[in-house]
Amino acid sequence: MDQLSIGQYDLIYNAFSFAFATMAAATLFFWLGRSQVAPQYRTALTITGLVTFIAAYHYFRIFESWGDAYTIVDGVLQATDKPFNDAYRYVDWLLTVPLLLVELILVMNLTRSETVSRATRLGVLAALMVALGYPGEVAETSSQAWIWGSLSMIPFLWIVYELFVGLGKAVETQPAQARGLVNMARWVTIGAWAFYPVVYFAALIGAEGAMAETVIQVGYTIADIIAKAAFGVLIFMIALRKSEPSDKDKTSAVPAE
Amino acid sequence: MDQLSIGQYDLIYNAFSFAFATMAAATLFFWLGRSQVAPQYRTALTITGLVTFIAAYHYFRIFESWGDAYTIVDGVLQATDKPFNDAYRYVDWLLTVPLLLVELILVMNLTRSETVSRATRLGVLAALMVALGYPGEVAETSSQAWIWGSLSMIPFLWIVYELFVGLGKAVETQPAQARGLVNMARWVTIGAWAFYPVVYFAALIGAEGAMAETVIQVGYTIADIIAKAAFGVLIFMIALRKSEPSDKDKTSAVPAE
Repeated sequence: MDQLSIGQYDLIYNAFSFAFATMAAATLFFWLGRSQVAPQYRTALTITGLVTFIAAYHYFRIFESWGDAYTIVDGVLQATDKPFNDAYRYVDWLLTVPLLLVELILVMNLTRSETVSRATRLGVLAALMVALGYPGEVAETSSQAWIWGSLSMIPFLWIVYELFVGLGKAVETQPAQARGLVNMARWVTIGAWAFYPVVYFAALIGAEGAMAETVIQVGYTIADIIAKAAFGVLIFMIALRKSEPSDKDKTSAVPAE
Repeated sequence: MDQLSIGQYDLIYNAFSFAFATMAAATLFFWLGRSQVAPQYRTALTITGLVTFIAAYHYFRIFESWGDAYTIVDGVLQATDKPFNDAYRYVDWLLTVPLLLVELILVMNLTRSETVSRATRLGVLAALMVALGYPGEVAETSSQAWIWGSLSMIPFLWIVYELFVGLGKAVETQPAQARGLVNMARWVTIGAWAFYPVVYFAALIGAEGAMAETVIQVGYTIADIIAKAAFGVLIFMIALRKSEPSDKDKTSAVPAE
C-alpha cells in the first residue's frame, strides 16, 4: 500500500474517536429513555443500548489499535510493529448485527411465537453473514475472497427478503402512528447494510492504496453510526409513539407480550 | 509446544475481546431487566448479572495477559518473559459456577427451605469440582493430572444427578409457560459444562501443540459464553414469563415495575 499521509491518518483517527463518542452517548440516551416507554418496549430499548454499548467498546479498541499502529518519525508517518487490528469490526458485527434485527422484531410487538421464531431466524442468518465474510476479509488470494464474500451475500439477501416480504404483513398491522417509522427502520437497515458489501467488493475490484484505506475506514464508521445509533433513534421513536394512549382505542394495539 | 502462528494468536486474542464485550453487555442486560420481573425473581437476575460481571472482569485480565505474553518481532510471533496466566479461568469458575447453580434454583421459586438446602448443596459441589480440577491443570505429571481430574468428576456427576433427578419433581411444578425454558436451562447447563472435562482430558490423552492450544482457548471461551451469558438469557426469559399474570388475561402481561 502506498503510504498514508498524516492528513489521512488523522482523519481516520478522528473518525474513530467521533464514533466512540457517538456510540457512548447513544447508549446513555437509549437507556435513560427506557422509563419513558411502555413496559413491553423496554427490552427493545435495552437491546438498542446494548448494540451501541458494544460498538462503543469496539471503537475504543479500534481507536487504541490505530493509535498504536503508526508513529510519526521526523515528520513522516511510519507503521510500528503492532499491526492495526481490523478484526475488531467483525467481532463487533458478530454480536451487534443479530441484536439489531432482534430490536426491530421486539419493537414490532408481534405474538410471542412469531417474535421467537423471527428473532431466532434473523439472528442466526445475521451471525452467519458476518462469520462467512470474515475469512474473505483475511483471505490470501482474491479468488478466496470472492468465494467467501459471495457466500456471505446469501444470508444477506435472505435477510432482505425476510424484512420486506416476511415482515410485510406485520408492518401493516402496526398502529397508524408508528407504521411510517417501522417502514423507515426497515429501509435504514437495508440502506446502511448495503454499504458493507459495496466496500468489501470495491476493495476486491481494485480499489487499493492509502485513499482506498481511508474511504474504507471512514465509510465503515459512518455506516456503523447510521446502522446502530441513528437506527436506534428510530426504534426509540417507534417505542415512544406506540406507548402513547391514542385516539380511540389504540392501546389495544398492544397485543400480549 | 510448536509455535503459534500469528493467525492463531490473533484468533485467540479476538475471541478474548469478544468474550469481554459479550459478558459486559450481558451484565447490563440482566441488571436493566431486573425492573421488568416480579420482585421474587430480582435476586435471580442480580446474580445472573454478577456471574457475567465477574466473567467480564476475568476476560479483561485474560485478554491483557494474552496480549502481554507475546510480541511480534520482524513479523514473527515470539513469547515474552511474561507467561500467559491461565489460572484466571479457575479463579473465575470458583466464583461463578456455584452462582450459576444458585441462579437456576432461585428462578425456580421453590419453598424457602428447599431453596436454601439445594442452593447450598449445589454451590458447595460446584466449588469442590473447580477446586479439585485446578491441581490437575497445573500438575507436573500426567498421572497426578488424571487423579485430580477424576476426583473433580465426582462432584460434577453428582451435580448432573441433582439437576436431573433431584430437581425433576420441582420442574414438574413450574407454571406451564415456563416449564420448557426451565428444562432447557438444565440441558444447557449440562451441555456447556460437559465441554470443560472433555478439553481437560483431551489434553491429557495427547492433544498438544499450537492447534490444541487454539482449540482449548477458543473452546473454553465459547463454553463460558454459552454457560453464562446464553444461560442467563434463559433465566431472564423464565423470570419474565413467570412474572406474567397467567393464562386468561395476557394483555395485562405488564409485570409490576
